[in-house]
Amino acid sequence: MYSIGVRDHIMIAHSFQGAVFGPAQRLHGATYVVDVELRRVALDAHGIVVDIGLAAEALRGVLATLNYRNLDDDGAFAGRNTTTEFLARVVFDRLAERIAAGALGPDSAGLCAMKVTLNESHIAWAAYEGALPAAPVA
Amino acid sequence: MYSIGVRDHIMIAHSFQGAVFGPAQRLHGATYVVDVELRRVALDAHGIVVDIGLAAEALRGVLATLNYRNLDDDGAFAGRNTTTEFLARVVFDRLAERIAAGALGPDSAGLCAMKVTLNESHIAWAAYEGALPAAPVA
Amino acid sequence: MYSIGVRDHIMIAHSFQGAVFGPAQRLHGATYVVDVELRRVALDAHGIVVDIGLAAEALRGVLATLNYRNLDDDGAFAGRNTTTEFLARVVFDRLAERIAAGALGPDSAGLCAMKVTLNESHIAWAAYEGALPAAPVA
Amino acid sequence: MYSIGVRDHIMIAHSFQGAVFGPAQRLHGATYVVDVELRRVALDAHGIVVDIGLAAEALRGVLATLNYRNLDDDGAFAGRNTTTEFLARVVFDRLAERIAAGALGPDSAGLCAMKVTLNESHIAWAAYEGALPAAPVA
Amino acid sequence: MYSIGVRDHIMIAHSFQGAVFGPAQRLHGATYVVDVELRRVALDAHGIVVDIGLAAEALRGVLATLNYRNLDDDGAFAGRNTTTEFLARVVFDRLAERIAAGALGPDSAGLCAMKVTLNESHIAWAAYEGALPAAPVA
Amino acid sequence: MYSIGVRDHIMIAHSFQGAVFGPAQRLHGATYVVDVELRRVALDAHGIVVDIGLAAEALRGVLATLNYRNLDDDGAFAGRNTTTEFLARVVFDRLAERIAAGALGPDSAGLCAMKVTLNESHIAWAAYEGALPAAPVA
Repeated sequence: MYSIGVRDHIMIAHSFQGAVFGPAQRLHGATYVVDVELRRVALDAHGIVVDIGLAAEALRGVLATLNYRNLDDDGAFAGRNTTTEFLARVVFDRLAERIAAGALGPDSAGLCAMKVTLNESHIAWAAYEGALPAAPVA
Repeated sequence: MYSIGVRDHIMIAHSFQGAVFGPAQRLHGATYVVDVELRRVALDAHGIVVDIGLAAEALRGVLATLNYRNLDDDGAFAGRNTTTEFLARVVFDRLAERIAAGALGPDSAGLCAMKVTLNESHIAWAAYEGALPAAPVA
Repeated sequence: MYSIGVRDHIMIAHSFQGAVFGPAQRLHGATYVVDVELRRVALDAHGIVVDIGLAAEALRGVLATLNYRNLDDDGAFAGRNTTTEFLARVVFDRLAERIAAGALGPDSAGLCAMKVTLNESHIAWAAYEGALPAAPVA
Repeated sequence: MYSIGVRDHIMIAHSFQGAVFGPAQRLHGATYVVDVELRRVALDAHGIVVDIGLAAEALRGVLATLNYRNLDDDGAFAGRNTTTEFLARVVFDRLAERIAAGALGPDSAGLCAMKVTLNESHIAWAAYEGALPAAPVA
Repeated sequence: MYSIGVRDHIMIAHSFQGAVFGPAQRLHGATYVVDVELRRVALDAHGIVVDIGLAAEALRGVLATLNYRNLDDDGAFAGRNTTTEFLARVVFDRLAERIAAGALGPDSAGLCAMKVTLNESHIAWAAYEGALPAAPVA
Repeated sequence: MYSIGVRDHIMIAHSFQGAVFGPAQRLHGATYVVDVELRRVALDAHGIVVDIGLAAEALRGVLATLNYRNLDDDGAFAGRNTTTEFLARVVFDRLAERIAAGALGPDSAGLCAMKVTLNESHIAWAAYEGALPAAPVA
């Protein structure tokens, strides 16, 4: 099994609902350093898992929908806690959708899995991983 | 599959038995930067894998049983080499026991796997991973 | 010249005024991984620059005044852009004040300089450094 | 499941064939920081996954066949793009061959899997993983 | 004293002349992860050392003159060993020239020093630092 | 001003005397990831600060005098707390002595300063820096 990884980041504001979050119930923020891993059983004709330039560009496109925003104001997340693990899933779903739409090129049909990790500090991170092509998001 | 990770560290002394260990047969020591990964199929009602504050606290509690000690003097390890991989298992077992006892709260029953990694330098590490709930340690 | 360093972090929300900030004019946030370096010409009687436990505790105390907050709502920063470099100075000033008040113990009078670095992502950081004891903040 | 990891690096030159590579079609180079992970169900009699000194030595031996070279001149890679993922496989195959030949000692028969990761920058990496003993390379 | 830092990278091929370089006399290559630090006594009216977006863009422009190239073929370096420390100076000089030409905006006249670090692996790096405005390169 | 850096590590046991050290008064240990920085005003005839291979070898030689040992048993440190900052100075002095004795080659006379940093965990480090040639250790 082959895999490749690319890294980018976002800086967002948000707050959480629920006593379990303690002081994080207040409006605060985070830098998420985002790692995306793409997996494939065999390399394509060029000897790659996928065009890493296209992967980085697709990731940047997805992150632009979140970056420099207060996620509490985003209707897509109404009534949800935008926790690190929840956002890892959001990035996964949005990137999977772009991949399904061809953003990584014709050879990317061979991709079989993806993992999205959001590093929120030097001591904490969260991730979501799943198969590709991903089931459509309800 | 979702996962979250927390990081902490310990500083211990120990020595190893066996020619395979070369100079590490002498009494020496190590800083282990410890990463714990917890896995779960679906998020709980708060949108989290587990309360990361409780996870960090439980890890600190387990590490306190090892930290700032000469492991050669710890009866629990008599006759054993406290190698990095062995200690990863020790941390796994002790943390799994605390999780089973409810240290991560009522929702933590959904956790399905854990991985404990001990980074011993910038060029070497060891890990132990297994399912949760873990089988009781014999 | 000796130095020691300790690391901690905060997660805050804020927005900036000025076209130079582009999308960062919107309410967003950041994780700042904070490194504090303390310098001293000669070690004290215990063979240390300063009690690293007290240094970490003092840093945590200073960071608690900023952590999990929307800095736009903090009167202390009214009319100011709470940029990374500005916040590095804020942490420096508040920590210098605690040091002057004895938070690092009696031997800490020997400290001659401090540097505070705020790492905001894997590709950007800012810092403020100055002499100790620091001139009182106007 | 236990695992251990060791890290080393190589510095090579190469060029790629195919418009998908853009400017990387020109002769350029890379530092690859190489992480090798070895997996095993149970520890051996010494309490280890494998002799980490032998693992580091075997890795160094494999990397010496690539280090400080222009891979475009290496007949073993004629007609192939020596991409990061391709080279991860090369390191995997050559190391698996040494392991099969006994380079990690008699107890290493218990190893069940290996992953080789080549970190090419602070924002990109590729990896190859597979079972041990590996199928002979055609 | 304030400072800010930005990070980018290049991937180049080159070879060295001189027995001191051992196997690095062969054509090989490197990834250089490049850190640029800019220093300033007081913040500008926006509360910044310099527009970090312009700094990153200027750095990318300078690195584009080196990236994905065989430096042995670059006439600018004829008869010189393009060592890590030498290249740190090249980046410094070219970036200083852009800064002097206004690439970082009108307020950047307040910059007093710059340091360029090229990280060539997880265990080695080189840097060049100097005052700003820099003396013209002979 | 040019600088180069090399990294290596040691794993030692020790204990501290003095209530200020709390639980670190017990016999424990540490991994120190050691960074050595060497500074020079102008490059030598080869375009380098110093032969980085010789620098790494000299560092390894110095670290071998400490590695895999219980420093409490080392007569050279009798009556002293082998704190991180103290050990940074020990490495500095021993390396300076080797440099003075020619370990880095004839051109190394141009070196003007050295900094030795011991990273003891992901959240703490200490360093010692001074001019070269260093004054003889009393």
